[in-house]
Amino acid sequence: MQNFDYFNPTRIVFGEDTIGRLSELLPSGARVLVLYGGASAEKNGTLAEVRAALAKHDFAEFGGIEPNPSYETLMRAVGQVHREQRDFLLAVGGGSVIDGTKFVAAAALFDGEPWQIMEARGENVTRALPLGSVLTLPATGSEMNNGAVITRRATHAKLPFHSQHTFPRFSILDPRKTFTLPPRQVANGVVDAFTHIIEQYLTYPAGGLAQDRFAEGLLQTLIEIGPRALAEPHDYEVRANLMWVATLALNGLIGAGVPHDWATHMIGHELTARYNIDHARTLAIVLPPMLQVRRDSKRAKLLQYAQRVWGITQGSEDERIDAAIERTRAFFESLDVKTRLQDYAINAAALDDLIAQLEAHDMTALGERQDVTLEVSRRVLEAAL
Amino acid sequence: MQNFDYFNPTRIVFGEDTIGRLSELLPSGARVLVLYGGASAEKNGTLAEVRAALAKHDFAEFGGIEPNPSYETLMRAVGQVHREQRDFLLAVGGGSVIDGTKFVAAAALFDGEPWQIMEARGENVTRALPLGSVLTLPATGSEMNNGAVITRRATHAKLPFHSQHTFPRFSILDPRKTFTLPPRQVANGVVDAFTHIIEQYLTYPAGGLAQDRFAEGLLQTLIEIGPRALAEPHDYEVRANLMWVATLALNGLIGAGVPHDWATHMIGHELTARYNIDHARTLAIVLPPMLQVRRDSKRAKLLQYAQRVWGITQGSEDERIDAAIERTRAFFESLDVKTRLQDYAINAAALDDLIAQLEAHDMTALGERQDVTLEVSRRVLEAAL
Repeated sequence: MQNFDYFNPTRIVFGEDTIGRLSELLPSGARVLVLYGGASAEKNGTLAEVRAALAKHDFAEFGGIEPNPSYETLMRAVGQVHREQRDFLLAVGGGSVIDGTKFVAAAALFDGEPWQIMEARGENVTRALPLGSVLTLPATGSEMNNGAVITRRATHAKLPFHSQHTFPRFSILDPRKTFTLPPRQVANGVVDAFTHIIEQYLTYPAGGLAQDRFAEGLLQTLIEIGPRALAEPHDYEVRANLMWVATLALNGLIGAGVPHDWATHMIGHELTARYNIDHARTLAIVLPPMLQVRRDSKRAKLLQYAQRVWGITQGSEDERIDAAIERTRAFFESLDVKTRLQDYAINAAALDDLIAQLEAHDMTALGERQDVTLEVSRRVLEAAL
Repeated sequence: MQNFDYFNPTRIVFGEDTIGRLSELLPSGARVLVLYGGASAEKNGTLAEVRAALAKHDFAEFGGIEPNPSYETLMRAVGQVHREQRDFLLAVGGGSVIDGTKFVAAAALFDGEPWQIMEARGENVTRALPLGSVLTLPATGSEMNNGAVITRRATHAKLPFHSQHTFPRFSILDPRKTFTLPPRQVANGVVDAFTHIIEQYLTYPAGGLAQDRFAEGLLQTLIEIGPRALAEPHDYEVRANLMWVATLALNGLIGAGVPHDWATHMIGHELTARYNIDHARTLAIVLPPMLQVRRDSKRAKLLQYAQRVWGITQGSEDERIDAAIERTRAFFESLDVKTRLQDYAINAAALDDLIAQLEAHDMTALGERQDVTLEVSRRVLEAAL
């Protein structure tokens, strides 16, 4: 096992009818800015519940944070924070809104041009406004970690940052708030959480026995409930498990003391930045060929994945690996998430552009062994066509 | 899944050569009291490393915290804290030392007679001194939770308390510090962690799919590494996994959103208080008959435990349950932990006394359904003879 630091001070308030507890969770006297996305938080009643819970607090609102939240939009929120002297940020929405709120929290107190935060991946963040969240979409895990991914529309750049200062103080997870999500977003959430787990698990054996068992347990649970979450949108138990699994998939726990990959994410980000494909759908495109192309360096873990997650025990090693990768692809497709570039009208002519973007963003040595060069990424994208 | 709050702000610093980081983890200017147990922390060099790391800090020491830490001893530490105006407590040792330090932290700032903290199970704790720990014995999980169990020798009372104010700020886990542990303590640690998991898992199905998978993964890991931890005391990977699993067994995670039992612990505490049997050994005595006696109310989870943890799929339901309970007992015995009261020279004549103690401590409705009456506890103890 590798040495590690694990620290996660986010309080999770989980279950039915928990939004009413907002008032007790906020610092007394806080000047709150509520940040949200589009019409859905309004339509499904979550915003109304939040407003009711904040009745005795000083709060204002900032709406319109888009999927793949943009620097351009978020800087307007920073302006409002400064103008109105807001001192607590409350994100109401999914990962995009929470990620965006983390950026606003850090940018509002940053000395300098805030895009520098992204360029330094957050290492230059020394303070941030406190924030909390009310989660409406289980997917990214942003509700219980300190990371965020922000896009700059002007330059097609989509970059991550982390900081010890941007953990939410609390996150409220009420599974009922997910009942009205469009099926597309639910499916995206399942794929996103699944891939988060794979990025921290499917590398090489590192002796993290509990971490492996936890990752496998989360994958098994997603395989069990993913299709049910689509078929039975009002099943509380299914949605509750999806919500908690997606949080556990990226709160630092399963990744403590083991190697990480994240090459699939980095290549996926370029697809989103260039073609505006949903984040999760880019992962579903990239992950199967990523595993195929890197099957030798990932061999031991691919065999463990085949056996423990999919129950595949028959056949040669390569047959078992092929079967596991195909089961993974079939799982994504069963959620109506397409897994080929051609499904999104992207063909071989696009690859040079994508590789150039990876190079421009310093994504030239990705993966748990830093051996995913631009040449390897090209082979992955070719296999994804 | 049940509604839950999950909050755990303890920073875990895990791995080789991490004690040197103490200085960066302590508040600057802290007036530290280092608390430890017997001679082992001195003998194995841990205390020397701690003293070296604290060279530039103001610190004093309080040694002699015993297994099953006593109110009587700990109140002397409270006296030292007050006399010397100590403002940060550093526990160096296993669960007993960390538990004791939590009591000192709360008692030092408590208005009133500190035993009232135990009588109120910690609900009357409104503040505590900050504390950290250097763990030397993987077992109790105290290094990453807010609970403690304290014994009052004068009255043979052994009681638990919890408080939001007694989470360690940090805990340093260096697996090498466990290499010199006596085999008896290693075996006790495995049994203690195993039973912690069972208390939060083997109740009734509550729809916590990830919690179940996590608990099963931790149990499987203990079954895999327990005997190796005894056979290969200097195997870093085995000790590292034992250390992290024991922490994860009782840091609130696997118990979030699911029912808890704890009847085995409560009865075990009476055995320790009355006969001074090692805590873990009391659990090994009580758990198998506890599962036998309550096999009907725990039927569904016993069958799941049999299948997923022990791979038992053959036979009738009752045969599978019997086999799982016997495998559990055999696992404890394989670690040289005896599982019968008679192994400790306790016979049927002792039962009235034990039942009277349970009654005196209000332990009359234990378990996940509060249906473990004194009559049920008597049947468990009879079956434990």
